[in-house]
Amino acid sequence: MKFTVRQIAQMLNGEVVGDDTVLIHSAAKIEEGQPGCISFLANSKYEPYLYTTQSSAVIVDKTFEPRKPVNTSLIQVENAYSAFTRLLEEYQKWTFQHKQGVEQPSHLGEGSTLGQGGYRGAFSYIGKHCQLGENVKIYPNAYVGDYVQIGNNTVIHPGVRIYDRTVIGSDCTIFANAVIGSDGFGFAPQPDGSYKTIPQLGNVIIEDAVSIGANTTIDCATMGSTIIRRGVKLDNLVQIAHNVELGANTVVAAQAGISGSTKVGERCVIAGQAGLVGHISLAKGTQIGAQAGLGKSIKKEGLSMSGSPARELSEHLRTLASLRRLPELEKRLKELEKNQQLANET
Amino acid sequence: MKFTVRQIAQMLNGEVVGDDTVLIHSAAKIEEGQPGCISFLANSKYEPYLYTTQSSAVIVDKTFEPRKPVNTSLIQVENAYSAFTRLLEEYQKWTFQHKQGVEQPSHLGEGSTLGQGGYRGAFSYIGKHCQLGENVKIYPNAYVGDYVQIGNNTVIHPGVRIYDRTVIGSDCTIFANAVIGSDGFGFAPQPDGSYKTIPQLGNVIIEDAVSIGANTTIDCATMGSTIIRRGVKLDNLVQIAHNVELGANTVVAAQAGISGSTKVGERCVIAGQAGLVGHISLAKGTQIGAQAGLGKSIKKEGLSMSGSPARELSEHLRTLASLRRLPELEKRLKELEKNQQLANET
Amino acid sequence: MKFTVRQIAQMLNGEVVGDDTVLIHSAAKIEEGQPGCISFLANSKYEPYLYTTQSSAVIVDKTFEPRKPVNTSLIQVENAYSAFTRLLEEYQKWTFQHKQGVEQPSHLGEGSTLGQGGYRGAFSYIGKHCQLGENVKIYPNAYVGDYVQIGNNTVIHPGVRIYDRTVIGSDCTIFANAVIGSDGFGFAPQPDGSYKTIPQLGNVIIEDAVSIGANTTIDCATMGSTIIRRGVKLDNLVQIAHNVELGANTVVAAQAGISGSTKVGERCVIAGQAGLVGHISLAKGTQIGAQAGLGKSIKKEGLSMSGSPARELSEHLRTLASLRRLPELEKRLKELEKNQQLANET
Repeated sequence: MKFTVRQIAQMLNGEVVGDDTVLIHSAAKIEEGQPGCISFLANSKYEPYLYTTQSSAVIVDKTFEPRKPVNTSLIQVENAYSAFTRLLEEYQKWTFQHKQGVEQPSHLGEGSTLGQGGYRGAFSYIGKHCQLGENVKIYPNAYVGDYVQIGNNTVIHPGVRIYDRTVIGSDCTIFANAVIGSDGFGFAPQPDGSYKTIPQLGNVIIEDAVSIGANTTIDCATMGSTIIRRGVKLDNLVQIAHNVELGANTVVAAQAGISGSTKVGERCVIAGQAGLVGHISLAKGTQIGAQAGLGKSIKKEGLSMSGSPARELSEHLRTLASLRRLPELEKRLKELEKNQQLANET
Repeated sequence: MKFTVRQIAQMLNGEVVGDDTVLIHSAAKIEEGQPGCISFLANSKYEPYLYTTQSSAVIVDKTFEPRKPVNTSLIQVENAYSAFTRLLEEYQKWTFQHKQGVEQPSHLGEGSTLGQGGYRGAFSYIGKHCQLGENVKIYPNAYVGDYVQIGNNTVIHPGVRIYDRTVIGSDCTIFANAVIGSDGFGFAPQPDGSYKTIPQLGNVIIEDAVSIGANTTIDCATMGSTIIRRGVKLDNLVQIAHNVELGANTVVAAQAGISGSTKVGERCVIAGQAGLVGHISLAKGTQIGAQAGLGKSIKKEGLSMSGSPARELSEHLRTLASLRRLPELEKRLKELEKNQQLANET
Repeated sequence: MKFTVRQIAQMLNGEVVGDDTVLIHSAAKIEEGQPGCISFLANSKYEPYLYTTQSSAVIVDKTFEPRKPVNTSLIQVENAYSAFTRLLEEYQKWTFQHKQGVEQPSHLGEGSTLGQGGYRGAFSYIGKHCQLGENVKIYPNAYVGDYVQIGNNTVIHPGVRIYDRTVIGSDCTIFANAVIGSDGFGFAPQPDGSYKTIPQLGNVIIEDAVSIGANTTIDCATMGSTIIRRGVKLDNLVQIAHNVELGANTVVAAQAGISGSTKVGERCVIAGQAGLVGHISLAKGTQIGAQAGLGKSIKKEGLSMSGSPARELSEHLRTLASLRRLPELEKRLKELEKNQQLANET
């Protein structure tokens, strides 16, 4: 799919300086552009690239005046960065919109209902008694169990597995091979040394506007629900255990893990490879550093925690600094002992 | 599926106090119950909820006497907690039992044999010369390669990938998108700086009553077998490398990783995000803490190891405590130096 | 599939001592061999096993002379180890070659072209306008989006998900359930506390001879490309974020994670569970230890980094050694303080 520079300028309420008939098929950074690409210039630091870029068009602020001749078409707009972002959004929206209808073979269980405008890819599976809203897209090879509810405009990517009785809101995106609602990890030790499986009968509830990364796993609750609140963003390979609750607009980076029954407040940020033990709670706005290991509840809002075991960031940094001086401290200690020894001998 | 309170009481050998015709369709904690739910009361701490719960029925010990009026039906049994657990087990068993037969299209390779009573979901794939026992359930979109053996009552969830020549015992559960038997990570460095793949020709052997979490990976052996002994429980996103052996009833929590050729004894517990290097062995009952990094064999049984690099828990805790005092130690050291300086000057 | 000892000897240019009609169906370590297996003896440490092995044949150097009677057939070759490796390679090649043709149902989108000699398994999905080279194998339940390019001899295992516009070279192997090209994790904070998704419009480029482990995730670039250079080997459950570039012949072990826009040089080695922050670069030949957390660029070639936060290995080891002595240092410090106190009092 290609657009002329003129078409793009019209969409952005911009004006063209230069050739407005050039065809654009892709977007690129100004320093990496190729013919057929569109770029933007918002930060004056990047201005030198404007005079050398291979991109066919560059979006600029209308107040911007080039100091040298340019070989590319310019689109002048109110705010170059936000115009560019809007262009990308429109493009992405358009890309996703074009998946429509049903590819065969695909499986639709009895008693399931589908809203208008959706997509079901080949080899996708929807179980019994599911309710899917409007514009829901189920990509190829995805699996949706029985009694699942999915809200409007939610997109389920290839290979996602959604277990029975999961509830998913509107405007969510679940990326490839994520698993929602498999059994929590619960086993009761037996006298003979073996373990007996504790039935996991709850479900997962995902509210609106949630994004879940590729190969991430969210376990169902033992009873009740594992709950992912509105606006939560999970990266790839994240583990969310049974009965966890993540507060609205909380962000969890790749490979982090949250153990069973832990409650995370609103707008928390959990960095990559961090781990939280079970049965604790985090106040609103808590920040957990990369690779941190948090073992206790955080009651004060907005704290930054770091290290394993995690402590407040300022303490953690102070300890790290001392630690770096530790070999030198040993030397100083030895020196003191020697001097004291000498003093005692004299 | 719904049951009356009377039907449930009969199943549990209990007696009903109150309305025995109410319909139950779900289970819930007593403090979170809704109409149509059944809950239990075993711990007196939760007794206040009995008088306010929305659940339609509550299982109680027959020795229990309410101190206030209750608005819910009671089922009196010998032991409320174990009766409730039994109820959940029966429910889950029933849920799983109802998957039977074959959904089409599904693929069954030549020479493969299936026991009675199983289930094969739509878009499931079974290769050639496989032997599946009785009541084996292969969920939709799952893949089983060639020459695979699977014992009675084992359940393979949606999207699981089982490579050629894997052997799986009876009563196992493998959760969604787990991968069993992909190549071990083995490469021989070449003079030109590239790596040559070392063929991985072994397989994976999984004994009876093993549970494997969602998105977990178990590599095949270079030669011989990667072995998961009876009763092992693996959580989600766990990595088991080639030629590892996990002893009976060992438990591995989410996102932990075990490197190649390491042998883990019976009844070990490896906590979340822990890592073990390759070619070591762990004695029976070893416990590895969360995020620990174990670099050497553990020969004594029942030790707890913690930290990265991992040390015995008591040492680790002592060092952590010293570490927390380290900035203060620096101050004390400085003070000593100053005093000694003064002493020398006088 | 079985071969006689004579057939194997001919393939390896070797000579048989003993029965050359025995049938071989598998390979095993000499100490674990069973009838029907072939083993090798290269290290004299293992010679005692030669006289007790159950294997039906053992490959030995032609200079080797047994000191006791052997009960197995010997195949004498120039170099036992390399002959054995070659045998395994031939076997594996043969195993993979036998997958040919198309199993139905499978999906092939309009405008996609396929080279000769490939395989498409049942329930595999190939979108529109893809170009696949010769001998490309797409296993069952794998998904390839639109506008994807795949070079000759590349193998896509069951359940792999390849997003639109991904470019993959020749001779690559992508193991089960890996996800290539899902959205980078990019969100812009909004005034109301929510996050807005930043469109991720780039792609992933994978060069030749790359191996990608099971359940590994590689995100597409925001703009431009996430790039995996020639000969890179990624283990299972690895996370590669948007706009990362991995240099030729770099190796990343299981559960390691590399954050957005980080550039890793050639022939680096990143060990298991290590994490790299975003927007840094690593010089050629950098080695990152297991569970290390690297927070800054490495400019000098060939350094080994360890710990979290990561430091040069020698410093890290010195600090660890001091740390182990820390409780004892505290005692010595206390002793000094006591002595000084005494000195002051006298």
